[in-house]
Amino acid sequence: MTRSSSPSKASSIQSQKGDPYTYQGLKGWRQFRLLHPGWGMYHDIKRRLPYYKSDITDAFTYRTIASTVRMYFVNLLPAIAYTLDMHRRTGEFFGVNESLFASALAAMVFSVMGAQPLTIVGITGLISLFNYTIYDIIIRYDASIYPQFICWTAIWAAIFHWLVAVWNLCDYMRYVTDFSSESFGMYVGIIYIIKGVEELVYEFSSRDITSGYLTCLIAILYFATIYGLEALGSSTMWKAGFRGILADYAYVIGTIFWVGFAHIPGRIKDTNISKVPITKAFHPTQARGWLINFWELDVKWIFVAIPFGFLVMLLFYYDHNVSSLTAQARQFPLKKPGGFHWDFFLLGCTIFISGILGLPMPNGLVPQAPVHTDSLTIYETDLRIIPTEEGEGAEIRRPVVRATSVVEQRVSHFVMGLAIIGTMTGPLLVVLHTMPAAVFAGVFFIVGWGSIESNGILMKLIFLFKEDRFIQRGEPLLQVRKRKICLYIGLQIFGVASCVAISQTIAAIGFPILICLLIPLRVVFLPRWFTVKELEVMDDLTANNKVVLASLGGAPTLPSGTRAEDYGLERKYSEQKHGVPRQRAGSVHR
Amino acid sequence: MTRSSSPSKASSIQSQKGDPYTYQGLKGWRQFRLLHPGWGMYHDIKRRLPYYKSDITDAFTYRTIASTVRMYFVNLLPAIAYTLDMHRRTGEFFGVNESLFASALAAMVFSVMGAQPLTIVGITGLISLFNYTIYDIIIRYDASIYPQFICWTAIWAAIFHWLVAVWNLCDYMRYVTDFSSESFGMYVGIIYIIKGVEELVYEFSSRDITSGYLTCLIAILYFATIYGLEALGSSTMWKAGFRGILADYAYVIGTIFWVGFAHIPGRIKDTNISKVPITKAFHPTQARGWLINFWELDVKWIFVAIPFGFLVMLLFYYDHNVSSLTAQARQFPLKKPGGFHWDFFLLGCTIFISGILGLPMPNGLVPQAPVHTDSLTIYETDLRIIPTEEGEGAEIRRPVVRATSVVEQRVSHFVMGLAIIGTMTGPLLVVLHTMPAAVFAGVFFIVGWGSIESNGILMKLIFLFKEDRFIQRGEPLLQVRKRKICLYIGLQIFGVASCVAISQTIAAIGFPILICLLIPLRVVFLPRWFTVKELEVMDDLTANNKVVLASLGGAPTLPSGTRAEDYGLERKYSEQKHGVPRQRAGSVHR
Repeated sequence: MTRSSSPSKASSIQSQKGDPYTYQGLKGWRQFRLLHPGWGMYHDIKRRLPYYKSDITDAFTYRTIASTVRMYFVNLLPAIAYTLDMHRRTGEFFGVNESLFASALAAMVFSVMGAQPLTIVGITGLISLFNYTIYDIIIRYDASIYPQFICWTAIWAAIFHWLVAVWNLCDYMRYVTDFSSESFGMYVGIIYIIKGVEELVYEFSSRDITSGYLTCLIAILYFATIYGLEALGSSTMWKAGFRGILADYAYVIGTIFWVGFAHIPGRIKDTNISKVPITKAFHPTQARGWLINFWELDVKWIFVAIPFGFLVMLLFYYDHNVSSLTAQARQFPLKKPGGFHWDFFLLGCTIFISGILGLPMPNGLVPQAPVHTDSLTIYETDLRIIPTEEGEGAEIRRPVVRATSVVEQRVSHFVMGLAIIGTMTGPLLVVLHTMPAAVFAGVFFIVGWGSIESNGILMKLIFLFKEDRFIQRGEPLLQVRKRKICLYIGLQIFGVASCVAISQTIAAIGFPILICLLIPLRVVFLPRWFTVKELEVMDDLTANNKVVLASLGGAPTLPSGTRAEDYGLERKYSEQKHGVPRQRAGSVHR
Repeated sequence: MTRSSSPSKASSIQSQKGDPYTYQGLKGWRQFRLLHPGWGMYHDIKRRLPYYKSDITDAFTYRTIASTVRMYFVNLLPAIAYTLDMHRRTGEFFGVNESLFASALAAMVFSVMGAQPLTIVGITGLISLFNYTIYDIIIRYDASIYPQFICWTAIWAAIFHWLVAVWNLCDYMRYVTDFSSESFGMYVGIIYIIKGVEELVYEFSSRDITSGYLTCLIAILYFATIYGLEALGSSTMWKAGFRGILADYAYVIGTIFWVGFAHIPGRIKDTNISKVPITKAFHPTQARGWLINFWELDVKWIFVAIPFGFLVMLLFYYDHNVSSLTAQARQFPLKKPGGFHWDFFLLGCTIFISGILGLPMPNGLVPQAPVHTDSLTIYETDLRIIPTEEGEGAEIRRPVVRATSVVEQRVSHFVMGLAIIGTMTGPLLVVLHTMPAAVFAGVFFIVGWGSIESNGILMKLIFLFKEDRFIQRGEPLLQVRKRKICLYIGLQIFGVASCVAISQTIAAIGFPILICLLIPLRVVFLPRWFTVKELEVMDDLTANNKVVLASLGGAPTLPSGTRAEDYGLERKYSEQKHGVPRQRAGSVHR
């Protein structure tokens, strides 16, 4: 076993056995969550506050610098990329300044006050989708009320967030297994890639065909550059230190190179491909004050905004909490506790502020949140020598990646936030304006593909297609009938396909219902269709670290006779062979 | 050992011990090759003729069809690609019709009369380089004599070829080791890629910038398509049969798809990227008869052509014979003998005909010749189970590629020649005209990279850069000091770099001297700088099959105490692990 995040170790750090936040064993009215308002939040703060000082002092290592740089790029680039799209599709209401403001706000609030500062919060594709779908609906009636309407949506969403947090409803996230988080990861990856393609298509229609071709070229080569650098960083070439630098700064190197390329004087510069549109620093994109005059909206529209606010909450309930869960997932040896209720309450606050200022609402980011933890994890590539039975001294040498520890602190998140504020200033906005849309399309491709490449759905598909005789006999999937594997990933693919399809229509607004349904589907129906053994092989709790589960009221109730530790046979097998997977394109072992 | 081409087996087929063509043990005047005119050719025919009937009857298998299709694309596409370049740089003297004619002529002659019909003969980049360098020289004096001058160069070259064949001088090719054939492979690969880039650059300068970008896009995506298909074909996905189809028809699938793509109505078709320029079927590109009026050239120019003819012979001596050697290389379990002297004589004949008809001179093709043998080889992917010492039943499963046999016959080469003749007809020329230059740039990239990716120079470089502890202890290169490996590949890289550099200047004409110097460098100097053990690890005879060496007067004389079988430790180690390497992009094990 190469994982240091074994529950026994984690629980020895903090006595989880005695964690008072649990409903197990309670009787009478006490067993109902809703009757304990604020109990989860209270314990979240109580649990995390003792670590606050170390959250700052632990930060003085090189990892923090590398992480800050990487996250600045991985957070900022997709945020701007989504803004390009949202800008066009919301009548230019949301622009770069709004997105930067929202990202900076979220980074400041969550790095300073979040119970789990590892969870990166910012602008996602789903909120972009939400905002422009609402725009599509509103312009059927009166485009001029869009700012106020979206503001009220946010206000209601904030209220629903606070209610969920106060009523301890985040507890149900402990039932999230890979079944739904893989589906969500795949869905997000596909949406990223679709957005990348749309960005390329838009270049053809908004500029000329020449810009379109150059944009495609740069996007593809940007993808190849980052992919290659990250793959080299995960290889066994050179020394570990040099490899690490390649992987840590892959986005920096790739972005600087290809932005520079797009400005080579002569033919390339003359092609004049589209750049990030910027407006005056620190001012809203539209000619308006920062505060939305939300009190001027007709009362009937305020009521219409209620279901929209509820849907935003449902979306963020899933998206934010899964981001947070994956940032604290199994493979990271975390020692400090998280706090789902408190963070969800905070999210309500940032949503409220974003709402009344007319910013896009930020929430937890997949895959940026787990990438953040990854960037703070100290990995060691160990040598595993497998003695073979072929004569004396015969052996096979294999690299095994081990996560030794995570630099758990608030500083990288905070400094990244400061850097985003810096980006909002005039001079740096001008630098941003030099960046071609092509690079953003490339970002969509690389981040999206990163989410697909390592996905369990793809892994199981490859297993199904592989020629039988070359499959290692120890492979746990061999214990499951192929029909059952097909059914399992078939359900996942059906879920993903439904979500992708609905995202392309005006019904996209109802998408959060679909994605949330995956959790009860897993809990209620899957145990009827699969044996416990099959689920133990194919599925696993997304987070099984006791310090993480503590905030969710402890481990979920499982079918009798099974323990959380029994799940994830497939994953354990793979980790035993190659070590933990990294959150990087090109670092997957097949 | 997975190789069936063990010398013992081959020699049991034909009693090589008793092969009468050898100079070993001869005394007096008899030990001099030059005093045995035609001896090698005589034995070549005598040795191969008994197999002629089986060369036809052996062909009735599916492999022959797959091979014919693959070779049609792999031979035709680069030939046309080089012609595009040569056409522009020889004052439009050589065109598609000339190249097709030369390719068809070579295919007909060598498939019917060649002693080794596996060696694909056609238009290479080097002859294109030669022809336009001569053009660059001639236009300094009088551009109008170019046709006659190049004709006389060919006539002299033909005469030198005949002399070399008659005097048995091909025998020295037995000294060709991987030291020089790897260098040559790397050189050819680099030239291919340079030509690909030139093709892209030309699109920008001849058409507009929009065509240029689209051409780059298609070339890159064509490369990715073929690479991906061939890599999948070498993987362990799906059944062996389906994988084989993907790899066999990778060029067909990729070419049809991307040619079709370039014709999608709308923006792409409107971009009007450049296509293959064609002229009237069966007519020379220039307004001339097929026969060059070579008798009209001024006598002084006829004499000036002598050194040029000699250089062509030197180039082909190396290029053609190495192509032939690699087509009969170690990893192919060949059972029928080749005939270097007779084939070189035949090459003189095709050169003579090409010369007086004003065609580019064909010669043996790297990497097409070994790709031909590869396409005819029946590979089986065996399962190798390595028991490990970790508890009961622990094992590692690994695919090992084994070459079981080669469908040695003349029909695939012959039918491919017929297909090329077919391509010369009006209707198919029109089809050719639909192909964008972009696809040819892609062909340059994929064929060039295929030659680089599997190259021993690159392998040794990767070994040097790899982190030490992950190198398997059985790796023979560990027995050589790193300094010595650096020196060895340093010499190779120096040779390659010199050749590449000289190719870019008007001195390119002298390039054959450089490349031929690699053989004496290896034979005379390397044994002084390296120990026998070091060379045994790093170097190997390019062909060590006894049926092949028979035509070269037997195995080369080696330093006392060593045998040819002792060489190639590095290769044998790799083959023992993964099986024989295939001549495909993406099929290399690292």
